[in-house]
Amino acid sequence: MSVAVPRAVAWADDHRSAVRILDQRELPAREVHRDLRTVDEVCDAIQTLAVRGAPAIGIAGAMGLAVVARSLTYTNRRAFSEYLRDAADRIRATRPTAVNLPWALDRMLARASGLERGTSRVTILDALTDEATRILDEDRAMCRRIGECGAMLVPDDAHILTHCNAGALATGGIGTALAAVYVAAERGARIHVYADETRPLLQGSRLTAWELSRAGIPVTVLADGAAASLMRAGKVDLCLVGADRIAANGDVANKVGTYPLALAARHHDVPFYVAAPSSTFDARTPSGESIVVEQRLADEVRCIQGVPTAPDGVAIYNPAFDVTPASLVTAIISDRGVHRPPYDFR
Amino acid sequence: MSVAVPRAVAWADDHRSAVRILDQRELPAREVHRDLRTVDEVCDAIQTLAVRGAPAIGIAGAMGLAVVARSLTYTNRRAFSEYLRDAADRIRATRPTAVNLPWALDRMLARASGLERGTSRVTILDALTDEATRILDEDRAMCRRIGECGAMLVPDDAHILTHCNAGALATGGIGTALAAVYVAAERGARIHVYADETRPLLQGSRLTAWELSRAGIPVTVLADGAAASLMRAGKVDLCLVGADRIAANGDVANKVGTYPLALAARHHDVPFYVAAPSSTFDARTPSGESIVVEQRLADEVRCIQGVPTAPDGVAIYNPAFDVTPASLVTAIISDRGVHRPPYDFR
Repeated sequence: MSVAVPRAVAWADDHRSAVRILDQRELPAREVHRDLRTVDEVCDAIQTLAVRGAPAIGIAGAMGLAVVARSLTYTNRRAFSEYLRDAADRIRATRPTAVNLPWALDRMLARASGLERGTSRVTILDALTDEATRILDEDRAMCRRIGECGAMLVPDDAHILTHCNAGALATGGIGTALAAVYVAAERGARIHVYADETRPLLQGSRLTAWELSRAGIPVTVLADGAAASLMRAGKVDLCLVGADRIAANGDVANKVGTYPLALAARHHDVPFYVAAPSSTFDARTPSGESIVVEQRLADEVRCIQGVPTAPDGVAIYNPAFDVTPASLVTAIISDRGVHRPPYDFR
Repeated sequence: MSVAVPRAVAWADDHRSAVRILDQRELPAREVHRDLRTVDEVCDAIQTLAVRGAPAIGIAGAMGLAVVARSLTYTNRRAFSEYLRDAADRIRATRPTAVNLPWALDRMLARASGLERGTSRVTILDALTDEATRILDEDRAMCRRIGECGAMLVPDDAHILTHCNAGALATGGIGTALAAVYVAAERGARIHVYADETRPLLQGSRLTAWELSRAGIPVTVLADGAAASLMRAGKVDLCLVGADRIAANGDVANKVGTYPLALAARHHDVPFYVAAPSSTFDARTPSGESIVVEQRLADEVRCIQGVPTAPDGVAIYNPAFDVTPASLVTAIISDRGVHRPPYDFR
């Protein structure tokens, strides 16, 4: 079978004048595409999770910077470089945890600063557009390779538990964790996915269930708290999740709720796999302890889809991510292959 | 300090002509009381979780049966007994997991059948009302004793993680797990409660946060998936949850999401306490394996407060409860005292 996956981030047109995103805040009810042209629009889209997923926000940031650069004042090269760095810094500040966003922005800035001194404005802009397109294309290729490596770990008739959305909607291509599912399905494997709904923002029920259903892959949604008893009942063959940042020692930052899954998987002898592009490896972060975990707004927990579900003004603890120690991770699947412990991503 | 707790179930008036419940489907937005007079109203209230929590549904079932009995046709004692048993069977069938409901109904039927042969209809009805009132009063006293036993396990300045609602709203009195919090607070202990929001029905954010805030006890709500990393961060001194059924070997059926908490607590050496009235002990159930776990409607997960959050028609796994093996339970607190392993509730 071939699988049809949505495109989370793309160029709006041949002129590459805007970044076209599938607005994930609207899913699964509506499939709305939105074109980003200004630094405010790019920051807002990333901040509000209209585009989300570590690889996708890296791509959207890079493509956004290329688009934004076109409207920056150009008096001389040095001033332009400063404006560009300012724009990159604003985009970078939208979300602190994923390493892909700073990685992609740094790459864009390096491309611009690597050009010869007399390079024209037009050539710089073309180079930025080219670099962002490369980041997008490389991500698509990386997703495919992750899928091919991961598919080898997926037996026929596998029941796979996943958390959040590490699918096409989180990347420029076919996803990371779900890439393994898509490639295995393409090769004829029968697969059933259990998708944690993933509170507070419901990326599992809203996004993972949507893209898998759309691709014809059977999926069952469950409350996050039901995953452990599903494992206890012997209904899960493997867990497969994405990552927002992987420390040098293999500690994994991913959507909050990943760590308790890894604990339950270990308790029930269920393999726990993490799939991510190698750009997620952060050599400069020795272990999970030094990963900054983004704290998000209380209203994400206090309200659901705008409906209040907790008493007014009650205190909320709302970390976006948690850290799963490397010791609980059976293997890490990247575009470079399948990594087994002891991990060393320095 | 003294704490002010709401009353989940009470008589509507001095004539005991109806069961007055605080409709928990409306919380925290509105405080609506509802009077139940017919078997349909009683069943509907229990089924739709207008009244919920193992002790409270036992009480509501018993009081409901006493009220319903008044309108049953009385031609002769035998026919009346059959009608009464039919009504009890209908109420009993509303929710299969908690043991308190069948326990309370059986006690009501035993009271009726224990009366002498020539007993008048009026005397039977009075006996039923009396028995239901005893069940309510005993529950209130049990809650108080549970609270007194549990408070001994709560150190000053304790940060306590709880799941679902095992508070006043789940009982006829001051609750089970939260009874320990209330009694400790009355005795001057400073306590901070972390309340898992408890998907799918959000009893933690809607009910536990509401009744604790109302009682002046600091509470922080978090998504269920965030509890493990809170423990990893060293912010939880103990876990304290209720139970819907406790098998003879100490295995505990409680709201889905309890088991992963117990796994995380064990991993982080956090004491994991279960508080429940001794009527929750089910001597006839040797272990958790034979506990029937209620599967609830898909729409509880597919929609939140009526707003769709997953694709139309997607498959849902929605068990109401999970089973925590006795080996993960540090102690069980009941009205009979603090029980330590090995448990034996035969």
